[in-house]
Amino acid sequence: MPLLVVGSVALDSVETPSDRRENVLGGSAVHFSYAASFFTGVRLVGVVGEDWPTAHTALLQKQGIDTSGLQVVAGGKTFRWSGKYQPNMNDRDTLEVHLNVFEHFDPVLPEAFRRCSFVFLANGSPTLQLKVLDQLPGAQLAVADTMDLWIKTQRDELATLLKRIDGLVLNDSEAKLLTDDENLVRAGHAVRAMGPKFVVIKKGEHGAMFFSEHETYVLPAYPTERVVDPTGAGDSFAGGMMGYLAEQGKFDPVTLKTAMAYGVLVASFNVEDFSLDRLKGIARSDLEGRMEEYRRMLSF
Amino acid sequence: MPLLVVGSVALDSVETPSDRRENVLGGSAVHFSYAASFFTGVRLVGVVGEDWPTAHTALLQKQGIDTSGLQVVAGGKTFRWSGKYQPNMNDRDTLEVHLNVFEHFDPVLPEAFRRCSFVFLANGSPTLQLKVLDQLPGAQLAVADTMDLWIKTQRDELATLLKRIDGLVLNDSEAKLLTDDENLVRAGHAVRAMGPKFVVIKKGEHGAMFFSEHETYVLPAYPTERVVDPTGAGDSFAGGMMGYLAEQGKFDPVTLKTAMAYGVLVASFNVEDFSLDRLKGIARSDLEGRMEEYRRMLSF
Repeated sequence: MPLLVVGSVALDSVETPSDRRENVLGGSAVHFSYAASFFTGVRLVGVVGEDWPTAHTALLQKQGIDTSGLQVVAGGKTFRWSGKYQPNMNDRDTLEVHLNVFEHFDPVLPEAFRRCSFVFLANGSPTLQLKVLDQLPGAQLAVADTMDLWIKTQRDELATLLKRIDGLVLNDSEAKLLTDDENLVRAGHAVRAMGPKFVVIKKGEHGAMFFSEHETYVLPAYPTERVVDPTGAGDSFAGGMMGYLAEQGKFDPVTLKTAMAYGVLVASFNVEDFSLDRLKGIARSDLEGRMEEYRRMLSF
Repeated sequence: MPLLVVGSVALDSVETPSDRRENVLGGSAVHFSYAASFFTGVRLVGVVGEDWPTAHTALLQKQGIDTSGLQVVAGGKTFRWSGKYQPNMNDRDTLEVHLNVFEHFDPVLPEAFRRCSFVFLANGSPTLQLKVLDQLPGAQLAVADTMDLWIKTQRDELATLLKRIDGLVLNDSEAKLLTDDENLVRAGHAVRAMGPKFVVIKKGEHGAMFFSEHETYVLPAYPTERVVDPTGAGDSFAGGMMGYLAEQGKFDPVTLKTAMAYGVLVASFNVEDFSLDRLKGIARSDLEGRMEEYRRMLSF
């Protein structure tokens, strides 16, 4: 099944304790799309400015990602983010954010995209996410991401969104902020009680937790000693997860757990280099190889 | 196989965001012993003062723990620790430590104890741990715990210890401190390079990691929403792990991984109430029940 994603497309500048990159390919929808493209056809909706290198679009297309929903705003500038990672490679400081053309992004989905059954609403305000959902009356599985910014500034809109989506993906600090509960197990169930059928809490280097009415589980991250740049890890996790679900065309409990595992593994590759540099060098077979190791790691 | 443990026996005062307990049964060797007693006969070596309630000794004996190595120092006072947990129930501030009789603890093992093959050196200085090891020439599996205090104050003695033990158990912040590396995968292997055949890094609510020459893996914590008091979680983890190994009488890779899982599960019960209150209410069958859930959680 094709998978639709709507979200940010960006040029990132990243500083780590040992290295840095300027204006590299980034954004939630980009990391998500590339990760999902190992599993299924992806339809990307986003916006960029005139400064957007066409080579980036070509790279996505080469991976089979349909970029016909990527608007280029004449005279506009692409969303830019710059951040600096602390020595633990987990905490980061945002140095600068220039929303640019993303600030007034108001996507109108191409007709063919409106029939997608599997949908991911990546980084964007709940208002924007709701507008996209309105254009997708036939979505079978609509999953969204959210951020601390929206929890703080658009809580009502987020509450409305949560009642309309099937799944929410957020990170641990966001789950605590949204529920005012420091225990992630209680927090996960509390978010689920706000509407979505399932909730995934991303814990960075510690893996991810899943919550549905009948299931609560945790999958650890794949242990890698090569953490070069964690930017986009959460989005590539979501991309791996949603990509696998769309490939399978279903989202029963067993498929969901396997999808979570693929998400963990795509993210483990994503952090091994800047931008998409590591993902560009791997194939589905590398994911399957790591999956074998991961299954072995978790069986005893 | 019987399992020997040498470590602290204490009276703890614990404050959490919602509750508190004064002078309850605690100490590394106590949490360890009780956790291990679900699996095997435990021989406890420690020291207490005249203020030690005999009911505590009776409780341990009832669980089949041999307390003949528990010295009572006439006129002495038992080791006391008091601490306060932050709202996240992971970070804690130590409010007071009174080593009392533990300060000059110089254990002389009973003759019968010296023949133990499975040994755990719980909280204590590397100097103390080395003195105990000297009395155990026939140990098949000697595993030790260590603490930030010893990493800072007895690094040379710790280095000597590491060359003489089979396994080391320490927590994430201690592993980073010992290796000056923020990446836990690299840190785990770096600690192993200091001597022990295997290293276990405890990550609290995020589970535990294992490192040996041929294996690196992570097991997540069992997700519990009832975290009342994390005191002793690490010791009960080690107790569950070592108890299972001693019960099996072997420590091949498969047995070690299963032992890690039992450690995770005993610890998950331990945190559900103060002191040993939760462990006192469970039986081996409760551990097996949770093990079934845990295996199901990790399979897909």
